[in-house]
Amino acid sequence: MILVTRPGILPEEMDEIRERAEALDIRTHVSDLGDRRVIGCVGDEDQIRRLGRTRFAGVEEMRRVDTRWKLASRRFEEERTQVRLGFHDVGGPGLAVIAGPCSLEGREMIHETARAVHAAGAIALRAGVFKPRTSPYGFQGLGQEGLEMLAELRAETGLPIVTEVTDPRQVDAVAECVDVLQIGTRNMYNYDLLKEVGRVQKPVLLKRGFAATIAEFILAAEYVLAQGNPQVILCERGIRTFETMTRNTLDVSAVPVLKRETHLPVIIDPSHAAGDRALVPALALAGVAAGADGLLVEVHPEPDRAFTDGAQSLNFVAFAEMMVSIRAVAEAVGREMLIGGSSLEDS
Amino acid sequence: MILVTRPGILPEEMDEIRERAEALDIRTHVSDLGDRRVIGCVGDEDQIRRLGRTRFAGVEEMRRVDTRWKLASRRFEEERTQVRLGFHDVGGPGLAVIAGPCSLEGREMIHETARAVHAAGAIALRAGVFKPRTSPYGFQGLGQEGLEMLAELRAETGLPIVTEVTDPRQVDAVAECVDVLQIGTRNMYNYDLLKEVGRVQKPVLLKRGFAATIAEFILAAEYVLAQGNPQVILCERGIRTFETMTRNTLDVSAVPVLKRETHLPVIIDPSHAAGDRALVPALALAGVAAGADGLLVEVHPEPDRAFTDGAQSLNFVAFAEMMVSIRAVAEAVGREMLIGGSSLEDS
Amino acid sequence: MILVTRPGILPEEMDEIRERAEALDIRTHVSDLGDRRVIGCVGDEDQIRRLGRTRFAGVEEMRRVDTRWKLASRRFEEERTQVRLGFHDVGGPGLAVIAGPCSLEGREMIHETARAVHAAGAIALRAGVFKPRTSPYGFQGLGQEGLEMLAELRAETGLPIVTEVTDPRQVDAVAECVDVLQIGTRNMYNYDLLKEVGRVQKPVLLKRGFAATIAEFILAAEYVLAQGNPQVILCERGIRTFETMTRNTLDVSAVPVLKRETHLPVIIDPSHAAGDRALVPALALAGVAAGADGLLVEVHPEPDRAFTDGAQSLNFVAFAEMMVSIRAVAEAVGREMLIGGSSLEDS
Amino acid sequence: MILVTRPGILPEEMDEIRERAEALDIRTHVSDLGDRRVIGCVGDEDQIRRLGRTRFAGVEEMRRVDTRWKLASRRFEEERTQVRLGFHDVGGPGLAVIAGPCSLEGREMIHETARAVHAAGAIALRAGVFKPRTSPYGFQGLGQEGLEMLAELRAETGLPIVTEVTDPRQVDAVAECVDVLQIGTRNMYNYDLLKEVGRVQKPVLLKRGFAATIAEFILAAEYVLAQGNPQVILCERGIRTFETMTRNTLDVSAVPVLKRETHLPVIIDPSHAAGDRALVPALALAGVAAGADGLLVEVHPEPDRAFTDGAQSLNFVAFAEMMVSIRAVAEAVGREMLIGGSSLEDS
Repeated sequence: MILVTRPGILPEEMDEIRERAEALDIRTHVSDLGDRRVIGCVGDEDQIRRLGRTRFAGVEEMRRVDTRWKLASRRFEEERTQVRLGFHDVGGPGLAVIAGPCSLEGREMIHETARAVHAAGAIALRAGVFKPRTSPYGFQGLGQEGLEMLAELRAETGLPIVTEVTDPRQVDAVAECVDVLQIGTRNMYNYDLLKEVGRVQKPVLLKRGFAATIAEFILAAEYVLAQGNPQVILCERGIRTFETMTRNTLDVSAVPVLKRETHLPVIIDPSHAAGDRALVPALALAGVAAGADGLLVEVHPEPDRAFTDGAQSLNFVAFAEMMVSIRAVAEAVGREMLIGGSSLEDS
Repeated sequence: MILVTRPGILPEEMDEIRERAEALDIRTHVSDLGDRRVIGCVGDEDQIRRLGRTRFAGVEEMRRVDTRWKLASRRFEEERTQVRLGFHDVGGPGLAVIAGPCSLEGREMIHETARAVHAAGAIALRAGVFKPRTSPYGFQGLGQEGLEMLAELRAETGLPIVTEVTDPRQVDAVAECVDVLQIGTRNMYNYDLLKEVGRVQKPVLLKRGFAATIAEFILAAEYVLAQGNPQVILCERGIRTFETMTRNTLDVSAVPVLKRETHLPVIIDPSHAAGDRALVPALALAGVAAGADGLLVEVHPEPDRAFTDGAQSLNFVAFAEMMVSIRAVAEAVGREMLIGGSSLEDS
Repeated sequence: MILVTRPGILPEEMDEIRERAEALDIRTHVSDLGDRRVIGCVGDEDQIRRLGRTRFAGVEEMRRVDTRWKLASRRFEEERTQVRLGFHDVGGPGLAVIAGPCSLEGREMIHETARAVHAAGAIALRAGVFKPRTSPYGFQGLGQEGLEMLAELRAETGLPIVTEVTDPRQVDAVAECVDVLQIGTRNMYNYDLLKEVGRVQKPVLLKRGFAATIAEFILAAEYVLAQGNPQVILCERGIRTFETMTRNTLDVSAVPVLKRETHLPVIIDPSHAAGDRALVPALALAGVAAGADGLLVEVHPEPDRAFTDGAQSLNFVAFAEMMVSIRAVAEAVGREMLIGGSSLEDS
Repeated sequence: MILVTRPGILPEEMDEIRERAEALDIRTHVSDLGDRRVIGCVGDEDQIRRLGRTRFAGVEEMRRVDTRWKLASRRFEEERTQVRLGFHDVGGPGLAVIAGPCSLEGREMIHETARAVHAAGAIALRAGVFKPRTSPYGFQGLGQEGLEMLAELRAETGLPIVTEVTDPRQVDAVAECVDVLQIGTRNMYNYDLLKEVGRVQKPVLLKRGFAATIAEFILAAEYVLAQGNPQVILCERGIRTFETMTRNTLDVSAVPVLKRETHLPVIIDPSHAAGDRALVPALALAGVAAGADGLLVEVHPEPDRAFTDGAQSLNFVAFAEMMVSIRAVAEAVGREMLIGGSSLEDS
């Protein structure tokens, strides 16, 4: 349920609402709507109905939001959410590119990659240190050691860093070392993990489960939002279909649907969708043309030697070339590329 | 198998090859490769092997093409096929937009729509008169009567017309009245129909089956090509997945894959993919950015009153607006919009 | 719409209804319900409504059937349809097994197979002569020549024969030579072909499209029924999913769903579902346990030499062994195996 | 890699192998093969190769297992694994039925259900207390309080209890209170959780992810086995497809495939597959006929009032009736029903 206040509601009137809600075990989320305030109420449905029968002095309107999602819905928050990443906002007028290797493989390679993707225009680095792998015998990432390398790189360069968490017990340690916590496609339904990243105040990059409906995807974001963390970036990365000539099928329609249904930034990952580096530029351009707020791209110094996902990684030259085309399409749909902004600038 | 001749092969040497092939019941397809010729040989595998053991004076090289498709393959024909539509070539440097209603509903509405889509930049009109419908009780199209309206419209305006055939027995009559024979998504596996449209010399717009792999789609085109009709346009129109917020999932990756695997023009149909007119522009732009050679778009004077597929049809204003954005994205990826070219120009 | 008459309606009262319906271009289908009659009315929705406003002397009740299917629905016809095949009824209390090769390959092999499957308990022979193949270069069946072999076999042995039709122009010729017209999975959406088999009075074995929903499957049957041919057997044969360890995924749930929604017999094809002969018996038993009225099984004298689908064909011994297990499970769910009944008996 | 020893290998020879393996950070799993022993070696591929170059006195044969899974494979362990549940073995000649409500809702309802399902022949009770729900606003289970109710019920009745864990931090507490740890469909890819249940010595009931291939499913089991816990029961529970008339599509083919590829017990969950109680008996019978070792069935005292999954739950009478049919089909495929064995017997 949403309460819309009258203009200039008094602090004590706000308190009254909050107290009543708390007594009913209902969480409230307040956002400003010009001089009015919108109070989202989340909790047990019966209690919500009870709250709805209360008369509050400062409330002008009560609206039931009967979409399945509330906090993520544009009915709750009309203004688009922008998630701060270093010097830039993801979800605003600019287009944000995040790039880097699937797995962090060593200190030198990650510094080299950071410099290269930044030079080509990426505003943040992605690199995995906890790798969920289909086989227990596959490379599982450098773990704690890798995390320290990321922390060091970030301290040196100021480049924002995105890395995946896979276990609720990792969340605090990872949140200390990096800028964005990524939830991977295999963990989109891992609600205990979602709640945990909802409790820290760090941006969350949430990937769509490869077999998740868009509705389930939004509800996974809702798990994070409902814990009080509003900084969620949605990432479409391809879904599982019968087609075998691509690793996954990029669901480019998800971009306009997610932008219509939610106020959250939406980016696409053309690399995992394609599973084949030759297709990555076409999918990246398609995503930008469809209205995505950014891209998450796999880049590796020597893709053919990558520990994981080499087939879909671009090398530095291919990435830089692709960025030229992306800029052109971004401008054709009325967006500027976000660019630069770390201390690497001068290095 | 492919035979590559030496430069300046003599006519009698060509005849010798043809005769030997005919004796083995093998069809040949000749294309020019500069001063050499490439002869594609299609037929029973055992006979092909037998032909491969023959020594021909004018042949420099024999290559087995072990891709599953032959005539559609870029190994057989490196130059991209361009299909002539009125004054324009689909599959060349220009971007082609074909638009019109799902079903022809009457004389007035089709003339009105033809004028509107042409004015906005479409180079051909689409309109169905034989409608394959999931329910036997749905509107099945105006049939023969509608076909006559299309013939009349074409005679008057010169605007190229695309319409669907669903039965081998319709093919000749339809081929006389329109410019392009469309094979719909439900008939992609209807091989008897594919053979029949392969026998006439009219362009064929072949839609991907909504559950067809890309490989099966190319093999369906191969059925048409193998009958001697090289004018095939491939159309991606969305595939069936678990997602329910869109009618189908546009497989935008199919565009670069089809362009890599075949020499045929590739267009997309954003309307059937989306099933929702609000999503059509985003998908159209995504298709163009991904490298499609054109679009097939549903446009109706009053979408909410359409007999079929109203929810996904654009009205004239929305279509014209979308065309402006399409032009911008087309130019960003280095393509010009094809435009105009019928006698409607002056009307 | 369904009209239920009063008991003992007079012939002239029936005529009145029929004439009024005809005048409105509505088809009627009459079935007996004890001493009452049920008249199903199929046609344009507006005309149906007009008919519904007429008062008829002999009609006690008018019911709108608002399921998407009418003639196939158990609301229209409560009694289960039984389709006669030789001496047996498919869809009654007995369990019917139809077996034979994917493709007819020659006179000797088909006679040998007919004897073997009949001896093991099959009540009819399946054999394809018009083969829809994914590649135009695959074996396309023996065509007319094969059809004659089937006619000859049938005349000699009296064994009912099932074969596939793929083109509306084949229907009359095939209907003369065999007992059951099969519509294959690729042609389930080929409505012109469905209408054509609806016009002849021969049983139709309709396979589910490998990507068809159950609703679309029933509506395809409705196309046949609406033409006046009530003898339709539904066949579940596996659907296309992301799983790759089987060729298709047998949708065993379709059996109870189809039996609940329609009055038509339902059989399963474990061979195409599995694509692997080792899995065929398990799927066959699963189908019988789930309530199927019969099975359609691929059997070949030498599966490893089969022209088509050898990997999923059973040899004679494996088929005979499987039939023993099938009988046991059939009895456990309260059904007798149908058996024998051709002049092969004494050979 | 697998080492096969000579008959009567000495204890010190075994120690030598173990020590060398440990030095290389390789885990070993020993199983008896008559008088020989089979030693499975799991670890880093390079180290495995190094171990393979060592000459051991007691080893007769070294075999690389190049299937993707090792410990789960029938090549590693030919004998079928049986998992002890109370007085019975799941995966042996008997058929095991586990039943109970989706969610534990209160003390009385769970005791009542335990008595009812046991009386009808179930050998264990299922009941969820930690519920992963698509919406954060859905009922999330009774948690710790529910766990205590389960512990109490188990102490009183001796009936084995299955419950789901969703977070690695719950595993120890849950393992103390119940007999089987269930990993739900949403957590099949949650590898940190799989490792955690691999560390405790309690049977694990692993559900297939609703969009997981069979290969991924087996590899998820491999995660548990690789931690040293061999007691894994695989559960097919329906996969996500385009079909909408059932909640999921039961992949009954998975049963014979899993029994061929692995030595682990395989059961099916007809309730989640169907999503509709009317279909549950048909799917249960299909699973048994296809060779499943058991069933997991949702039963509730008053399905229409269930907090979760009521539509697919059977009431006590329907469950007892279904058990009669299951016994008949089980016997037709040569299996006895496991039955009884708790102190509820005499109550």
